[in-house]
Amino acid sequence: MAEQEGLTVKKADNFSEWYTQVVEKAELSDIRYNVKGFVVFRPWAVMSMELMYDALERELQAKGHKPVWFPAVIPESNFSKEAEHVKGFAAEVFWITEAGSQNEKLEERLALRPTSETAMYGMYSLWIRSWRDLPLKLYQRGQVWRYEGKATRPFIRSREFYWIESHDVFATRGEAEAQVTEDMETTRATVHDKFGVPFLFFQRPEHDKFAGAIHTYAADTIMPDGRVLQLPSTHLLSQDFAKSFGVKFKDKDEKEQYVWQTCYGPAVSRIFAAVVSAHGDDKGLIIPPEIAPTQIVIVPIHNDQTRDAVLVEARKIKADLEKRGGFRVELDERDGYTPGWKFNYWELKGVPLRIEIGPRDIEAKQVVMVRRDTGEKKGVPVAKAFVLAKAALRNVQRELTKRADKGFKQQMRKATTMRALKEILREKGGMVKVAWCGEADCADMIRAETDGGTVRGTLLGEKQADLAGRKCVYCKKPAAAEVYVARQY
Amino acid sequence: MAEQEGLTVKKADNFSEWYTQVVEKAELSDIRYNVKGFVVFRPWAVMSMELMYDALERELQAKGHKPVWFPAVIPESNFSKEAEHVKGFAAEVFWITEAGSQNEKLEERLALRPTSETAMYGMYSLWIRSWRDLPLKLYQRGQVWRYEGKATRPFIRSREFYWIESHDVFATRGEAEAQVTEDMETTRATVHDKFGVPFLFFQRPEHDKFAGAIHTYAADTIMPDGRVLQLPSTHLLSQDFAKSFGVKFKDKDEKEQYVWQTCYGPAVSRIFAAVVSAHGDDKGLIIPPEIAPTQIVIVPIHNDQTRDAVLVEARKIKADLEKRGGFRVELDERDGYTPGWKFNYWELKGVPLRIEIGPRDIEAKQVVMVRRDTGEKKGVPVAKAFVLAKAALRNVQRELTKRADKGFKQQMRKATTMRALKEILREKGGMVKVAWCGEADCADMIRAETDGGTVRGTLLGEKQADLAGRKCVYCKKPAAAEVYVARQY
Repeated sequence: MAEQEGLTVKKADNFSEWYTQVVEKAELSDIRYNVKGFVVFRPWAVMSMELMYDALERELQAKGHKPVWFPAVIPESNFSKEAEHVKGFAAEVFWITEAGSQNEKLEERLALRPTSETAMYGMYSLWIRSWRDLPLKLYQRGQVWRYEGKATRPFIRSREFYWIESHDVFATRGEAEAQVTEDMETTRATVHDKFGVPFLFFQRPEHDKFAGAIHTYAADTIMPDGRVLQLPSTHLLSQDFAKSFGVKFKDKDEKEQYVWQTCYGPAVSRIFAAVVSAHGDDKGLIIPPEIAPTQIVIVPIHNDQTRDAVLVEARKIKADLEKRGGFRVELDERDGYTPGWKFNYWELKGVPLRIEIGPRDIEAKQVVMVRRDTGEKKGVPVAKAFVLAKAALRNVQRELTKRADKGFKQQMRKATTMRALKEILREKGGMVKVAWCGEADCADMIRAETDGGTVRGTLLGEKQADLAGRKCVYCKKPAAAEVYVARQY
Repeated sequence: MAEQEGLTVKKADNFSEWYTQVVEKAELSDIRYNVKGFVVFRPWAVMSMELMYDALERELQAKGHKPVWFPAVIPESNFSKEAEHVKGFAAEVFWITEAGSQNEKLEERLALRPTSETAMYGMYSLWIRSWRDLPLKLYQRGQVWRYEGKATRPFIRSREFYWIESHDVFATRGEAEAQVTEDMETTRATVHDKFGVPFLFFQRPEHDKFAGAIHTYAADTIMPDGRVLQLPSTHLLSQDFAKSFGVKFKDKDEKEQYVWQTCYGPAVSRIFAAVVSAHGDDKGLIIPPEIAPTQIVIVPIHNDQTRDAVLVEARKIKADLEKRGGFRVELDERDGYTPGWKFNYWELKGVPLRIEIGPRDIEAKQVVMVRRDTGEKKGVPVAKAFVLAKAALRNVQRELTKRADKGFKQQMRKATTMRALKEILREKGGMVKVAWCGEADCADMIRAETDGGTVRGTLLGEKQADLAGRKCVYCKKPAAAEVYVARQY
């Protein structure tokens, strides 16, 4: 199954083609599955995404969430209960209508869940009785399915994707608002601090909220071609869900109240697309050590005569690294491939650290260490291999994140005219700060005139400038907010 | 959400009612989801099943398997490619036929996967080219969906269940046969050694094989009511799948050959039913330490005056147990509940070890340890708490397994007449060894006459007795094999 051929395109020259090649040649996904919009996720990507799941789930559990598994099917009557929600999702639903060898019609159509609010909240109404039952913080990992028309791109967009959805319930709006802040912090602690992907959180404009939310806060990252990719979003829900599904509790005064709810949806498969895109280079992937299926690959260098001696030593080093550091180490013992071929293979796969060992190294009681991100190569004493490998991995993790952060900052710009906005989006991409009147129509016109530039919303944590006298970049009416515009995936 | 009420039935008196109560009161599953055959799996069960997944996945990966995520939908044309397989599964398939808000008909119906052979093997034909690509050993974790008519019982049987399916490919039949043996070993190393559930592997008779297999080997455990529950099965597939999907490789002589395949499917949600049933008692669950979401619960005993001092000490002990032993520890700090209420609560939940600490314990520099399985209670010095907790958990794990093994052995019997067979199955249940002619018709008659006793097949590893002169227990024709008969779930 080993692909021997490297990438034939440079990332900076043609990102789209680079992405296609790296997904295929590093064996991340196969797009040849014969249902439109569905792809196969291959082991190298799955192992990394499982580590991403681990990081997210640890973080959620540490903050009091518990895992749950709800059915993947939602009866049409549930799905239709909340008016805004059904309007927002109806176009994207796959319907199960029959079953069995006689194609027996089901009594009621079943939606393959596009998201689980309408699966979960009916049960919440049974579980929640009193203020003592709150807060209730549950999440589930798994797939959702959305029948959407946009072109399929593995990890970026497909009709089946992998995520976590967390659904939390509170007695007060204040607690729900605090949860939304906690979700953003969870995103930082994982997506940025462990996966090395920079992003900013925006409060989405009214016309771009989640179906059934008061406020939607979504993280955007910037891809190498200057377009943004939406990452996790968290939503302060209106009480309409609670009313539709009867989610009520008795407060301390025995008075019945509707609950306040939030939901948060980090899409692991999509975040993986951002990881691939942020860190990779012209040789292939570079996976941050925190989520690399293999953190250290050992490539033995030998001929038939020296084979056994070299492998004995290499296995010792592997065992030592695993035992002392808990590292994920692979020793590439495959015969019939040259060391050079193996170097290329593991570089394409993005393993952050390589250790080479041959007969002369053994004699000199050393190994050669090569960092994937910088290509830096040095001989180190075997006795120090563990300490230096640990330091190297820490450095790779830090440097990858720093480099990505720096690139991200350079893609943040401002414009005061449509002409400047258009030019920046055309020439450079990235995010462009403009003043905006707040009208959806105006956002539509900006989109049309900039070949797809969408209003991402107001930047969280950014102090709004004094808007007195400022005009909307498009319609010139008084500005309601400073927002960012970007072309999106 | 805390249920305060304990079980109102004894396990030995009415196992079925006991199971229903423990599932509800320990908050393992909720059967009130409004789609027939679908249930919600609640956090306490999910956390334990996640630990079961971990154990199984670690074992599979150590044996060279890699994880993969295939689509949950299978186009009808794939699904129908292998004749035996489609015959076996057609009656159990949910069909997706339309999508979107206009109920647009899909070009082709999509099966919600009941199992993934027909999703995976077409892709295998693209990935496998040469003997160098073999063996290929992949697995995926996730749900499958089966439209079946039997009554829903949480974990035991529902229309959506959670499993791992591993699909392996080899150059020779010999290697495939060795894989089947490895799968049985994997089952022992997890289901028995970590989950404490005893079972035996049977080679299923011809009429009860997996659709598309040469041989099916399935593990059966015995439930407390004497009926057996099928646990993981592993299948030596015929080459018909390889032929239907074109899975071929060039051997070392450049000759094209069809591959040999196996598949193995441990159903985690069902194995959990066996865990619940094997170990629980009249107070509720007892979860083996290896897969207990909480291994040690600390219950502080205090009044308002002593509260702070006791909690400080309890938190210290918790931190020490977590840090030194990596144990999963919960300190129940909830106010408004008596210690007695908390004891009952955690006993119902099946936490294997409880530590109590109050002001007098602090004075005496001790804590009280209580084993869930035996109820054994003793004071131990704080300084020894870690060592003794570790030993206690090891002992609970071992004793639970031993007790289950012993109960299982007592349920293995023999019969030489239909009358004896009927009597044993009616009075005691369990597995009964009989001689059998090998005919499916005869198995049907045995089933009819024994109120559901099915032929489980020949016991793996058991030497077949000399059958000369032996007659089938039912038809009295010459016996072809010694097999076991049992009533099943």
